[in-house]
Amino acid sequence: MITKWIPLAQVTMNDPFWASVQTLIRTVVLPHQWKLLNDLVEGASPSHCVENFRIAAHEAQGEFSGMVFRDSDLYKWLEAVGYALTIERDEALEVVADEAIALIGRAQCTDGYMNTYYSIQAPLERWKNLTEGHELYCAGHMFEAAVAYHQATGKPEFLDIACRFADCLCLRFLDGNHGYPGHPEVEAALIRLYEETGVERYLDLSRVFINVRGVGEDLRTREEKVGGYTPIWNHLKDMPVSYLQDHLPVREQHEACGHAVRAVYLYSAMADLARLDGDMALAQTCQELFDNATKRRMYVTGGIGSCSEGERFTLDYDLPNDLVYSETCASVGLMMFARRMWRLTDDANCYDVWERALYNTVLAGMSQDGKHFFYVNPLEVSPERIAETPALAHVLPQRPKWFGVPCCPPNLVRCVLSLGGYLYAQEGETLTLLSHIASRVDSSELSISLSREDDRYTLSINSNVKTVRLRIPDGFELLADYGTVEHGYLVFSHQGGSCEYTYQMIPKLRVLHAHPRVAADAGKVCISYGATVYCLEEADNGKHLCELALPRNAVFNKIYPAWMPAGTFALQTEGVRYSAEDWTAAYEAREPEAKATQITFIPYYLWANRGEGEMQVFINVHKCTDVHD
Amino acid sequence: MITKWIPLAQVTMNDPFWASVQTLIRTVVLPHQWKLLNDLVEGASPSHCVENFRIAAHEAQGEFSGMVFRDSDLYKWLEAVGYALTIERDEALEVVADEAIALIGRAQCTDGYMNTYYSIQAPLERWKNLTEGHELYCAGHMFEAAVAYHQATGKPEFLDIACRFADCLCLRFLDGNHGYPGHPEVEAALIRLYEETGVERYLDLSRVFINVRGVGEDLRTREEKVGGYTPIWNHLKDMPVSYLQDHLPVREQHEACGHAVRAVYLYSAMADLARLDGDMALAQTCQELFDNATKRRMYVTGGIGSCSEGERFTLDYDLPNDLVYSETCASVGLMMFARRMWRLTDDANCYDVWERALYNTVLAGMSQDGKHFFYVNPLEVSPERIAETPALAHVLPQRPKWFGVPCCPPNLVRCVLSLGGYLYAQEGETLTLLSHIASRVDSSELSISLSREDDRYTLSINSNVKTVRLRIPDGFELLADYGTVEHGYLVFSHQGGSCEYTYQMIPKLRVLHAHPRVAADAGKVCISYGATVYCLEEADNGKHLCELALPRNAVFNKIYPAWMPAGTFALQTEGVRYSAEDWTAAYEAREPEAKATQITFIPYYLWANRGEGEMQVFINVHKCTDVHD
Repeated sequence: MITKWIPLAQVTMNDPFWASVQTLIRTVVLPHQWKLLNDLVEGASPSHCVENFRIAAHEAQGEFSGMVFRDSDLYKWLEAVGYALTIERDEALEVVADEAIALIGRAQCTDGYMNTYYSIQAPLERWKNLTEGHELYCAGHMFEAAVAYHQATGKPEFLDIACRFADCLCLRFLDGNHGYPGHPEVEAALIRLYEETGVERYLDLSRVFINVRGVGEDLRTREEKVGGYTPIWNHLKDMPVSYLQDHLPVREQHEACGHAVRAVYLYSAMADLARLDGDMALAQTCQELFDNATKRRMYVTGGIGSCSEGERFTLDYDLPNDLVYSETCASVGLMMFARRMWRLTDDANCYDVWERALYNTVLAGMSQDGKHFFYVNPLEVSPERIAETPALAHVLPQRPKWFGVPCCPPNLVRCVLSLGGYLYAQEGETLTLLSHIASRVDSSELSISLSREDDRYTLSINSNVKTVRLRIPDGFELLADYGTVEHGYLVFSHQGGSCEYTYQMIPKLRVLHAHPRVAADAGKVCISYGATVYCLEEADNGKHLCELALPRNAVFNKIYPAWMPAGTFALQTEGVRYSAEDWTAAYEAREPEAKATQITFIPYYLWANRGEGEMQVFINVHKCTDVHD
Repeated sequence: MITKWIPLAQVTMNDPFWASVQTLIRTVVLPHQWKLLNDLVEGASPSHCVENFRIAAHEAQGEFSGMVFRDSDLYKWLEAVGYALTIERDEALEVVADEAIALIGRAQCTDGYMNTYYSIQAPLERWKNLTEGHELYCAGHMFEAAVAYHQATGKPEFLDIACRFADCLCLRFLDGNHGYPGHPEVEAALIRLYEETGVERYLDLSRVFINVRGVGEDLRTREEKVGGYTPIWNHLKDMPVSYLQDHLPVREQHEACGHAVRAVYLYSAMADLARLDGDMALAQTCQELFDNATKRRMYVTGGIGSCSEGERFTLDYDLPNDLVYSETCASVGLMMFARRMWRLTDDANCYDVWERALYNTVLAGMSQDGKHFFYVNPLEVSPERIAETPALAHVLPQRPKWFGVPCCPPNLVRCVLSLGGYLYAQEGETLTLLSHIASRVDSSELSISLSREDDRYTLSINSNVKTVRLRIPDGFELLADYGTVEHGYLVFSHQGGSCEYTYQMIPKLRVLHAHPRVAADAGKVCISYGATVYCLEEADNGKHLCELALPRNAVFNKIYPAWMPAGTFALQTEGVRYSAEDWTAAYEAREPEAKATQITFIPYYLWANRGEGEMQVFINVHKCTDVHD
């Protein structure tokens, strides 16, 4: 019983919203990011990424520059290019990518090792600081890129480079005595490489990395004892071992903890391994970690990591809106974990997490022009307050052009371009539609078309599958006059051959309350429509968003401001603005006056596209009915 | 028309609450702090304060140790001893103090200069870093101590030491060309010294320091240009000039800004100077700064300074409950500023600020045992969250024994022991009762007794004053069948000789709302009784205080737990606890269930006396009436 996604190569997304986002990424973002990697964008934080490869290949002179994991920026970009070329051939882009891959090949050491930082800067320190060195992390991103590029083009060169490096890793690490990654990533990538090549030792190595993690002394202590350990970041030694998910053997970890990106990358690999090995104990651990991460430690926007120091998980329900971290990469990683959990468990709710992260934090990571990116995704912003409060300095009220640590922009890009590969799945004679995005599937065995007009969907299937399952997404009502609802799916029989099914999927406008242990949201609510969380912006509502409150019986109207993308809309309602014009103190023994006002909500992912201003996801609830006009 | 407080020497506070606090301070805290200053308390952060004086006097060997302003700890302690001896003679204590004063005299330089850091550690750097060096700050604390000790004992030695140092300052600084204090304090102290000695040049020097501040280039830039400037704290150079209130001439400063203690110390001196000089422009500035500080930038607890970095004021209504600083010293300084503003303006409301700071933040600074102290006074504490959140690391859930920078404990002590000197004032034939604390005044011209039984007060006056004014405090209803209410006072005629007046002063139990621009308090309220703000503690209400909410029609009962001081009480009411036991996510499209529960509030100043736990001043308001038992 093997569940497989219908691969990206067979799926065409033609939903207008997603088509336009993907076109923007293919035509604007990818070329722009290539320029960034080559330091050709004025005013952007310098990358030096491609230059590092040239220096490592002895084709340029100079020092390594950038963070130790700089190589991964190029790999993530190449992975995204792989998806882009799968979506639509682009000869010019492919030439650029081929040249970059050839450069990587020339920079690679004869034993297969590849890392420009260590090759250029510290050749004698290779493998001596896995805790911080990110060699295995970069390896993982190379493997993912190579698989994507191979699937896109069929060209063997990049995959060969990756396998040579993977073989080099196997020689060093398969015995389990030489450590494991400080930043997980290679574990899931090795499994992808195994699935692409069939080479079992890559799966074996992933299993070794997962199994030796957190057993006995922690990695850093061990590496320091061995000697030759050169610290890279001093602050890291103040972090608890759980920052690296290195405090316990993975099967004894029950709470999502530490650096959020590291965590979900590791958990993703664990979910894959549990599936491939049929390891029920590991599957149980994955379920506990997934539940903890998504039911107690995830923002309504699908963001994870509530603390900026360590970019990490903290405590159950500790979800401050202002101090928040919620890194874009972490939500990309959460989508990776969520879809693997679905494949492991068949639980439809896993895709609710996937969509919540996608339609909110991941999409919010990029500006409408495709050239500015968020790393941190706050749920409450006052630019004036941020400027006065060093504890909020990590929260930027506007997307910058690029970052000194530019992990998020290419991560977002590879995520969005790969979406088509995770919409449909097949397991024997059962076809499952996971996310209702208008699209087409064309393969020798299967032809599917999903189209949408307003809330009406038409699904045409030409296939020999016997059972069709439509996932019923959180935030929607799915109406059909056939099938039965089973565990979050609408399930019906397909008689074989060609058939057309129509259904309605009506987004619910929901007023969401936070769990009462979320202190920051006491007395507040937020608005969501379908899977999309809405927010307030100063551009629509004026300054001092904290003065606004929503009546309990608010009725919303859709409006279509010109600046918003086609098909998206704002929500407007009558609310109140508390006023204290006649107050002489900051605290008085009376309720502020409530004045009627119009309140406009926009999708969270569209915030900060109209200049700097306040933003708020949660809004106070108005407690009484006396409103003065 | 000169308004004068009836001095401490003539006033006996016999209110049981205050008598017990003052007795604790005189009999426990002062001896304990003396031990701390002499490094005789195990487990407390080392002080080295007295030892520094011994080294400076060449009576011990060694290096200076501690912060550059360490001398001020001894001065503040001696000032408090002055008040303690005024309240009640204590020969043993006086012997200790006399010895300490003699030591200061021996440590003083022949030219009058006195600062152990510069004498021991950096004699060539004297006066070269006024920005950070705190020489003038320490001088100010010496002058205040000397005045208090002189008033207490009539002994001339300490006052002589102070005048020698003040004369040394005059020589150096009276021309206005040699700088001014980075940390204001000496300005107000010089005025006190002038008022005690009648030496006009001390007033002149204070005026110079105030007038040259913020004119032209800032102090630090100028000192760096002169040369010989050795930085003490690197972080200070990242602070804006407004941190030192050095960004504009003082008469052009309209908003309370920068380091909160520095600010209110400076403003205190400005208010004194405005009064003494009849400087209406300066008085107007003081009024603006007072209004801004107390009506827009002060917590309901009388705390000021909402940002830990720089311990400073930020923006109007930026009053976060968790990130708060609210230093004990800043509220002590706010009391200094408030009572001077009263003397300058006769505005009864100034004493509302004075009482709000006193009855909440200042009192909260000390534990019931008198041996533990708060520096930071938060309005919301979750020990677990603090432990996970470096941005909250400055917030301690328990009072420590002592601090590396122990400015607050002796400041609180000198403040509380001096209270008696600010209860009554006389201006010609008008007597004003400012704060209704049971007490007695005995002087050759005046005999007053104020006694209290529950809410009934009896004021006996034997004097030739013609008019009596009773301040009507915020938070109370004052009932009397005589007199008229004028500008916040109950005013009535006294026929001369002996007369007894009774009145009722009934504390109001008030539900206070924050100004709607205080984002942290949206949808919340706090409870105050009279001048005392109440809070919730985990010890009474269990964990997860954020789950609690107060119905809009809550009725409160007083209860008298055994651990609370006599005369104080808790307030109990029926409230709700939101419950989400059946929730599977952190955010759901339904209101959490509201379960009836008892909620107990205690006075804020008594929090953290029963072990570590959560605390909250503001509480969510329950929005509907469906409560499940």
